[in-house]
Amino acid sequence: MTENLANMVNSTPIVIGDEEIFEAHAGGKISVDLKTPLDSQRALSIAYTPGVAQVSRAIAADHTLAARYTWAHRLVAVVSDGTSVLGLGDLGPSASLPVMEGKAALFKTFAGLDSIPIVLATKDPDEIVETLVRLRPSFGAVNLEDISAPRCFEIERRVIEALDCPVMHDDQHGTAIVALAALLGAAKVLDRDIASLRVVVSGAGAAGVACANILLSRGITEMIVLDSQGVLHPERPGMNDVKLELAQRTNPRGLTGGLAEALAGADVFLGASGGVVPEELIATMAPGGVVFALSNPDPEIHPELAAKYAAVVATGRSDFPNQINNVLAFPGVFRGALDAGARRITEAMKLAAAEAIFSVVADDLAPDRIVPSPLDPRVEPAVAAAVAAAADTAS
Amino acid sequence: MTENLANMVNSTPIVIGDEEIFEAHAGGKISVDLKTPLDSQRALSIAYTPGVAQVSRAIAADHTLAARYTWAHRLVAVVSDGTSVLGLGDLGPSASLPVMEGKAALFKTFAGLDSIPIVLATKDPDEIVETLVRLRPSFGAVNLEDISAPRCFEIERRVIEALDCPVMHDDQHGTAIVALAALLGAAKVLDRDIASLRVVVSGAGAAGVACANILLSRGITEMIVLDSQGVLHPERPGMNDVKLELAQRTNPRGLTGGLAEALAGADVFLGASGGVVPEELIATMAPGGVVFALSNPDPEIHPELAAKYAAVVATGRSDFPNQINNVLAFPGVFRGALDAGARRITEAMKLAAAEAIFSVVADDLAPDRIVPSPLDPRVEPAVAAAVAAAADTAS
Repeated sequence: MTENLANMVNSTPIVIGDEEIFEAHAGGKISVDLKTPLDSQRALSIAYTPGVAQVSRAIAADHTLAARYTWAHRLVAVVSDGTSVLGLGDLGPSASLPVMEGKAALFKTFAGLDSIPIVLATKDPDEIVETLVRLRPSFGAVNLEDISAPRCFEIERRVIEALDCPVMHDDQHGTAIVALAALLGAAKVLDRDIASLRVVVSGAGAAGVACANILLSRGITEMIVLDSQGVLHPERPGMNDVKLELAQRTNPRGLTGGLAEALAGADVFLGASGGVVPEELIATMAPGGVVFALSNPDPEIHPELAAKYAAVVATGRSDFPNQINNVLAFPGVFRGALDAGARRITEAMKLAAAEAIFSVVADDLAPDRIVPSPLDPRVEPAVAAAVAAAADTAS
Repeated sequence: MTENLANMVNSTPIVIGDEEIFEAHAGGKISVDLKTPLDSQRALSIAYTPGVAQVSRAIAADHTLAARYTWAHRLVAVVSDGTSVLGLGDLGPSASLPVMEGKAALFKTFAGLDSIPIVLATKDPDEIVETLVRLRPSFGAVNLEDISAPRCFEIERRVIEALDCPVMHDDQHGTAIVALAALLGAAKVLDRDIASLRVVVSGAGAAGVACANILLSRGITEMIVLDSQGVLHPERPGMNDVKLELAQRTNPRGLTGGLAEALAGADVFLGASGGVVPEELIATMAPGGVVFALSNPDPEIHPELAAKYAAVVATGRSDFPNQINNVLAFPGVFRGALDAGARRITEAMKLAAAEAIFSVVADDLAPDRIVPSPLDPRVEPAVAAAVAAAADTAS
């Protein structure tokens, strides 16, 4: 392992100068284009007046026709209030826009879905939900993005309740789906039953909570979740509802304390904390384990150090092996949900997405190849098909 | 005239079958595309993480950079509540979407501007204004569209007050700008001073009110405006604020009554009423006059009949000469306002737009060619330049 990692680390990482980055963002990264050019009076008369009146009349008479004759039905609104932009915190809606444009570019590239950034000049959950309800006829799905925890949990729950279309907070579930896919890969590499693994999730923000939840759904029972105050357990005072609910479903041994108590003898460390885990604590894990240090840009522990103790190491970064990157999940998840006409993105659909990502590399696994590359063209179609199939039976 | 019109009318009008129209609308008419393909890990690292973080950080430190490094600054939101879709009435937001997509297609085709349809599931002016305030960081200008009168007046006024970017209700001002351009053309053809013309505006909805206002701004003093109850005059009971304000600025001879009283001896009939004007009333106008029968799809009077009495006849339709089509105005108006970095679309900018449209054909006028064709490629650059120049001095 160490040798493999060293090879990767030594293989020149991508270094991109600020000038090139800013130049690539000049004027934004996306544009709205016509499917058919308006190059004649005839084309104008079809796409605009008088022709378009026929289409408007038809939709007014039968609202379901909007799905067939407008772009909205398959349009993903990428929605943010800018309160948690990447790992950078509350930068505000304007500063979040380049990320949302990037997300729209990814939706198009990986899933062929049109997508528009909607960045909001409000942080109030009531106002965010209300705004999306008013915008509902404009789009067909909502990808919530870069909304701070714990607000993101309430906002996602309420937007799902309020809208009759697929809604997903990608920072939660995109990360969770790919983390589960990676853990399925790691378990197979290690010849372990995933349900038997003792897992420590460090971080109870958007990604940590969602990772814990999807691993619970996948049958993992020996799980401990920590926030900055230490291990979650039901008697701990001052936890928000989301943490309390997680505390009640995890920590079966009733552990208290911090990372030291949690990691001793654990099989899996899943970091989604934005913090640091000392090497000496990783050293106390069970031998031959798994470290997912997902904080970006700075993993909780450098993968080279982690590899001294763990058999499989993954990060969120593209310059180390085993990149746990949301782009493996969200394009196919939304594509599959929209293909199936699903009104919800259910737990079954998320599990199906993780299994599909895993299945793409299941016959070709190695400790430094537990997930597909973000550019692997097989992933999105596999995820979309699996999610659509799960939607058929589950929603 | 009659012969020219007959030629045009006999020249085969464009007949397009429903099947072709609906096929052209399948899946919508616009799409979101990437300016640069994401075809490598390097491209991904520039447009998304980690590269995009640099751009977000820079905008967070200096919000004005959003104008340079996102698409929003030059993005036009085409906003409707679907309460007055084309001439078809309150069809609702979903049924208005094909029109808004068409509008976005026109913005791109004629002005190179990106544009997204925003259709709202609310008719409440407070909620519409509030929603656009919350969406403000997502776009750079607002084209209000197909909002019913008199709500459209209040909504436009309040959105202009609330947002620090160009806002225009196109059904009002797009129509008014092109109508003024056409009247400038007609006046020149007839060798008349436009300010001396006696004008009757039939209709006090969005288009009628805006036409009346821009003609007042251009120096016309002998103007009478009518709604379905007859001539507006300050003592008439039961008028809304907009009509009262117009009544106080028009009708200098204190006329009362209806179309018969208004049209007798008038030089110009401008119909924006959705109604009908009888031939026998047009016959009472001063000889050698002007009839703009702008209601769509059914002009207030058939242009062949009008041409028995008027020297210049125009409609909103593409199958008769002199089409008064908003597309001559709005692409260049928004383009010019955005090029100039204007925060408002002022009256001076609207007047400049009308003069620019007129100037394109000023040396090549004829009774059946008082405005350029909607497809004339000289129009948008001329309008944009004139509007930008007017913005420099006026705002």
